[in-house]
Amino acid sequence: MKLLRHGPAGAEKPGILAEDGTIRDLISVVGDIAGDVLSDAGLEAIRKADLTTLPIVAPGTRLGPCVAGTGKFICIGLNYSDHAAETGATVPPEPIIFMKATSAIVGPNDPILIPRGSVKTDWEVELAIVIGTKAKYVTEDQAMAHVAGYCVANDVSERAFQSERSGQWTKGKSCDNFGQLGPWLVTRDEVADPQDLPMWLTVNGKTMQDGSTKTMVYGVKYLVSYLSQFMTLHPGDVISTGTPPGVGLGMKPPQFLKAGDVVELGIEGLGQQRQDVIADPA
Amino acid sequence: MKLLRHGPAGAEKPGILAEDGTIRDLISVVGDIAGDVLSDAGLEAIRKADLTTLPIVAPGTRLGPCVAGTGKFICIGLNYSDHAAETGATVPPEPIIFMKATSAIVGPNDPILIPRGSVKTDWEVELAIVIGTKAKYVTEDQAMAHVAGYCVANDVSERAFQSERSGQWTKGKSCDNFGQLGPWLVTRDEVADPQDLPMWLTVNGKTMQDGSTKTMVYGVKYLVSYLSQFMTLHPGDVISTGTPPGVGLGMKPPQFLKAGDVVELGIEGLGQQRQDVIADPA
Repeated sequence: MKLLRHGPAGAEKPGILAEDGTIRDLISVVGDIAGDVLSDAGLEAIRKADLTTLPIVAPGTRLGPCVAGTGKFICIGLNYSDHAAETGATVPPEPIIFMKATSAIVGPNDPILIPRGSVKTDWEVELAIVIGTKAKYVTEDQAMAHVAGYCVANDVSERAFQSERSGQWTKGKSCDNFGQLGPWLVTRDEVADPQDLPMWLTVNGKTMQDGSTKTMVYGVKYLVSYLSQFMTLHPGDVISTGTPPGVGLGMKPPQFLKAGDVVELGIEGLGQQRQDVIADPA
Repeated sequence: MKLLRHGPAGAEKPGILAEDGTIRDLISVVGDIAGDVLSDAGLEAIRKADLTTLPIVAPGTRLGPCVAGTGKFICIGLNYSDHAAETGATVPPEPIIFMKATSAIVGPNDPILIPRGSVKTDWEVELAIVIGTKAKYVTEDQAMAHVAGYCVANDVSERAFQSERSGQWTKGKSCDNFGQLGPWLVTRDEVADPQDLPMWLTVNGKTMQDGSTKTMVYGVKYLVSYLSQFMTLHPGDVISTGTPPGVGLGMKPPQFLKAGDVVELGIEGLGQQRQDVIADPA
């Protein structure tokens, strides 16, 4: 299933992409795409619904982030060997984890806001894992049972804030509108192999990233198991698994986003995003 | 006012410490100590309540974290010059910020769980700021109007996870029960000067930390303003402002927590916490 959330920011309702290409409103079936709804039993309840009887959401309606109630937005750093190389780093002996603020989460087509004082706002197409049920100290064999599904994420990053403003990456990863999630939460049964998904990103129509989750260093099973050794993962938690080569920081010379740019990105089977880049109007 | 949350984990109700020393149940006044309740107007509604008419909460009832709906648990690293010195670090030119997982948040007297594989679980008494209203790009002069109040925090830290397991501190800061908050959220009108609060921590009755927020490098006003340049702060967000000297890592030789230890900590005017240290039973 391709689950989504539609409507104005902060007032989204649950929805689903039907076989006929229409978006159907799920509010009569579930309260939101969050919490217990993300468990196998919760998802099964949606699967049983007769979508043809549900109201069609008007085309052009805004899409919100495809999951709600995200308590943790965990990211994996330098998780593609070729991306590590382009940034001058080596592949770490264990996954590097950092947090993005959950307040950075927005819909897939919401603008990228250039924060005040930013000169190095950059893009990162990533495969994100959405946790379905509580996971603590789980093995790799147990890990997949705790995954609700996957979505596209743009791990927007301000490189000067991240690396030139005193330790820890959070500062350059947590700005408002720095975490587009969606369009759909694709349930795990529809993703035959999460380690074989082509992914891409363009800026103003020019291809910048053209990779595949095949070159991910630490894969989905491993990451869920690994993270669960350090903290309990809860339903709705999002793990963004790192980016393939082609970020602005890695170019010679480096290239960053400016107001007026258009960023598009996608992952095979998971849909695509489109973002206008604008100066933060706040 | 000294606001709190009482009852079983996950089912806490709002409460208040009354002048007569009793805890009164606030459920008939507000839904929770969260969101809009943390604004000046929300707090004023509680202030007008006649506490003597409210039910007394039974002595010995568990206290939960003193604030709910925390979207971000932001911490400041190396923010006391003497603590920086004891860990062999220098005071950073700008605040170091990192995130603890919000899933680490527990009540003030809930146990410290030693995670599987941990050998370096450490303590950190800290002054935590609780945000009352949305703050973005605010100046130092505007900052205090966005602060609901303060509480005691134990920023429990696993030093090997933090520093010896591949980059970024989050890994050693986010384990379950690594963030005791409370007992009270003390509203800002009751804290004359947040930069003049004695604070202390003992392990098995022996004083380990005995400092004051006087030696904080970047103070409350500065931090709220600074953080709001990078991300919007929302009601219920918690900023833990760093720890004074006396952590286990800084001792010669270093000393860490083991099952059976008892940790007590407090800040003048903000109350105190007591934690049993136990192996994670999960």
